Amino acid sequence: MAQKYATREEDYSKWYNELVYRADLAEHSDVRGCMVIKPHGYAIWENMRAVLDAKFKETGHSNAYFPLLIPKSYLSKEASHVDGFAKECAVVTHYRLKNAEDGSGIIVDPAAKLEEELIIRPTSETIIWNSYKNWIQSYRDLPILINQWANVVRWEMRTRLFLRTAEFLWQEGHTAHATKDEAISEAELMLDVYAEFAEKYMAMPVIKGRKTESERFAGALDTLCIEAMMQDGKALQAGTSHFLGQNFAKAFEVKFADKEGKLEYVWATSWGVSTRLMGALIMTHSDDEGFVVPPALAPIQVVAVPIYKTEEEFAAISEKMADLAAKLKAKGISFKYDNDDNRRPGWKFAEYEAKGIPVRVAMGPRDLENGKAEIARRDLKTKEVVDFDGLENYIEDLLAAIQTNLLEKARKFRDDNTFEVDSYEEFKQKIDNGGFFLAHWDGTAETESKVKEETQATIRCIPLDQKEEAGFCMVTGKPSKGRVIFAKAY
Amino acid sequence: MAQKYATREEDYSKWYNELVYRADLAEHSDVRGCMVIKPHGYAIWENMRAVLDAKFKETGHSNAYFPLLIPKSYLSKEASHVDGFAKECAVVTHYRLKNAEDGSGIIVDPAAKLEEELIIRPTSETIIWNSYKNWIQSYRDLPILINQWANVVRWEMRTRLFLRTAEFLWQEGHTAHATKDEAISEAELMLDVYAEFAEKYMAMPVIKGRKTESERFAGALDTLCIEAMMQDGKALQAGTSHFLGQNFAKAFEVKFADKEGKLEYVWATSWGVSTRLMGALIMTHSDDEGFVVPPALAPIQVVAVPIYKTEEEFAAISEKMADLAAKLKAKGISFKYDNDDNRRPGWKFAEYEAKGIPVRVAMGPRDLENGKAEIARRDLKTKEVVDFDGLENYIEDLLAAIQTNLLEKARKFRDDNTFEVDSYEEFKQKIDNGGFFLAHWDGTAETESKVKEETQATIRCIPLDQKEEAGFCMVTGKPSKGRVIFAKAY
Repeated sequence: MAQKYATREEDYSKWYNELVYRADLAEHSDVRGCMVIKPHGYAIWENMRAVLDAKFKETGHSNAYFPLLIPKSYLSKEASHVDGFAKECAVVTHYRLKNAEDGSGIIVDPAAKLEEELIIRPTSETIIWNSYKNWIQSYRDLPILINQWANVVRWEMRTRLFLRTAEFLWQEGHTAHATKDEAISEAELMLDVYAEFAEKYMAMPVIKGRKTESERFAGALDTLCIEAMMQDGKALQAGTSHFLGQNFAKAFEVKFADKEGKLEYVWATSWGVSTRLMGALIMTHSDDEGFVVPPALAPIQVVAVPIYKTEEEFAAISEKMADLAAKLKAKGISFKYDNDDNRRPGWKFAEYEAKGIPVRVAMGPRDLENGKAEIARRDLKTKEVVDFDGLENYIEDLLAAIQTNLLEKARKFRDDNTFEVDSYEEFKQKIDNGGFFLAHWDGTAETESKVKEETQATIRCIPLDQKEEAGFCMVTGKPSKGRVIFAKAY
Repeated sequence: MAQKYATREEDYSKWYNELVYRADLAEHSDVRGCMVIKPHGYAIWENMRAVLDAKFKETGHSNAYFPLLIPKSYLSKEASHVDGFAKECAVVTHYRLKNAEDGSGIIVDPAAKLEEELIIRPTSETIIWNSYKNWIQSYRDLPILINQWANVVRWEMRTRLFLRTAEFLWQEGHTAHATKDEAISEAELMLDVYAEFAEKYMAMPVIKGRKTESERFAGALDTLCIEAMMQDGKALQAGTSHFLGQNFAKAFEVKFADKEGKLEYVWATSWGVSTRLMGALIMTHSDDEGFVVPPALAPIQVVAVPIYKTEEEFAAISEKMADLAAKLKAKGISFKYDNDDNRRPGWKFAEYEAKGIPVRVAMGPRDLENGKAEIARRDLKTKEVVDFDGLENYIEDLLAAIQTNLLEKARKFRDDNTFEVDSYEEFKQKIDNGGFFLAHWDGTAETESKVKEETQATIRCIPLDQKEEAGFCMVTGKPSKGRVIFAKAY
């Protein structure tokens, strides 16, 4: 652990990249743009997945699975969708390899060329609506409330672990409804599910909002989103929920007979979050010593390290730890006793600090004698010597306190870095320091694109709780009815 | 539900295909060889997955995720592996589409050709061992016990839903060990996990055995398997666990320093089960009326249907059902009250029978008056009128009885269709009727391949509990030390 790592102050981007390796979360693979998600990173993703999956089921959704491969022609069926997704696709053109005749190795068999190329799904609206076509005849078949957990591929040119990778893991909900209102309510409901998950489990405050037309999902009539602020003041879009209108129903000819027998096009939504949330989690809470995992998502919430010289000491400490393990287990708290004799306590301390384990328990011969243990909390890096008796209750309270502290700290950071600006000059001066900027905007794509060109900042969202406030666009001086959020973003 | 379906007697294969649709488990997609797994089918797979995942974690494994795409050259690194897997692969050759210049639609951009083609993983040994190379330096880094839940693609020419599809879902365990013995124990342990899962949850008896050399996994030194008998007497390989020796460590140069600092190649295993298990489940228990799901894997264990004419009756029955729901929930039994007013009871009965829901509760006005309910069990198709009071206990016992009955029935069927044969003539006469044939074999690939050519039967396995029994090969008359299992197989 003698390696010197970049601090957030020195180089935020380098700090992030190093942290993902330090905390053993993921690594680059030899396959361009694709990552390997290592056990510690995957365990956190699994916890996220379990919480979200339960929420989806509570709200009436079922999981299903649709093909990885999509015929090229499907992508063209919805006009705006093809522009959004056709460009950066992995294309399967052949289905067989063979030995080269000159013995030089294996080559693609030219005889095994597909008649129509297949695209690895960048998102599944097209293949799913092609199925829904056969599933929906009458109002009795609606609503369809389906979610899919899957891998998708988008051939990004510049990739970063978790934040932007060629292959990533995600869930995509795809629902079909008899009425416009029902579809809109569904899109709103799922946005709420995401926002609650972000705050309650990730301890990450988010702003619920609506994307401007130019930032909408390709094929959507309305894109709702949750936006979070990272420690460097940049925004990260953490989840989106789209009202798709009848666009995909029209593209795939999906109609239903209503109670009167009249044929109508079906209304649709789609919504998703991805392994990008791992990046958001890292950049919301971590520090120069490594990752900080909120207790609600930590695969190991408490780790204990014995400090001993003799076999007798080790046996006595281990006995105490077995007792603690049982008590924590009864409370549903995950616990690891690291009794590996191949590593020294100092090495273990640094390792678990880098991995972000919320609470560390250490016990040495003197603690044993005094009926105490040393408790370190990861978020504040404070230590306390605590009575072993009743320690399980102390730890339970501490985990709750850490979870609350992380959310409050992140919320304070965001609030401290959210500014109202009224002049474009002021905006341009401040935007490079990061933060969310609440500013009036004239509602045109031209102004949006001018700001983006000149400052790299975009409109992250029109907040759903936007206050009505008459004002003037900071760029053009044209009238505006409320402030939107500008920021630079991941 | 007026459609006439094939019976198992008439056409087992047609019955199977129709059943997958009738029970709403899966369907063919428009993408050649790829299936859509529908919510009911996926929910059963999710239950299988949850049980197996918990077992993997109990036995010390963690989940991780490796790239979908594998550089073509990796496949050639392990000599026998390339022969086994290089042939039927989906090959990604390009990473971009563009609009055709003549406006005819979108085409593959010839400028976006990959330098090295990428293969969609047919299995992940190569990409994983390419990572392990960087993870393993010393004995302290071992063992590595990792599992991956993933989709894989093998370009099968003849596909059947669940049994053989171009894309399927599976888990693949990949472990690395310091010693040969430890790797062999791991392969055996995971075979036991699979066998226990098959019997306890799927109610499917299996024979644990070892594959002959010619049936081994490409790259393995030893392939262990569990083999089940389907209702038509054919065998189905339900899971495999491979001892890979040092083959992949040598192919990817993975060495570790032992405690004395000596460099050694790492020992490996891999093991997997797939959505093929869904096919096995169907063909072990179902009948001419549809699917039969063992209670231990049923997403809905109990369904209740109200029978009523008036609103008052409906309200009174619904109240009783809310009471039952609460009591079953307290016992951890999953329950659905189908109060959908758009469908008639008869329609619902047929629907849940086809879907295989283990227990159906029906309640009409007379039952209500008498404090009774009608209980139908799916496996035996028997009905009983039972006191509503204490019904939750009756149902709990019934679910356990159904689970036991399914396993016993399947075991009896298998035993009744397992034969010892000593002459090749007798074997050839009987093999077309299906069943497992315990016969002596001279141990040569020649004999094995002659039998396969002449009868389509293969050696399913050399049972792990093979009795030592001197005999003579049924084909060549050469000496043999014990009987192996021949059968036709899926």
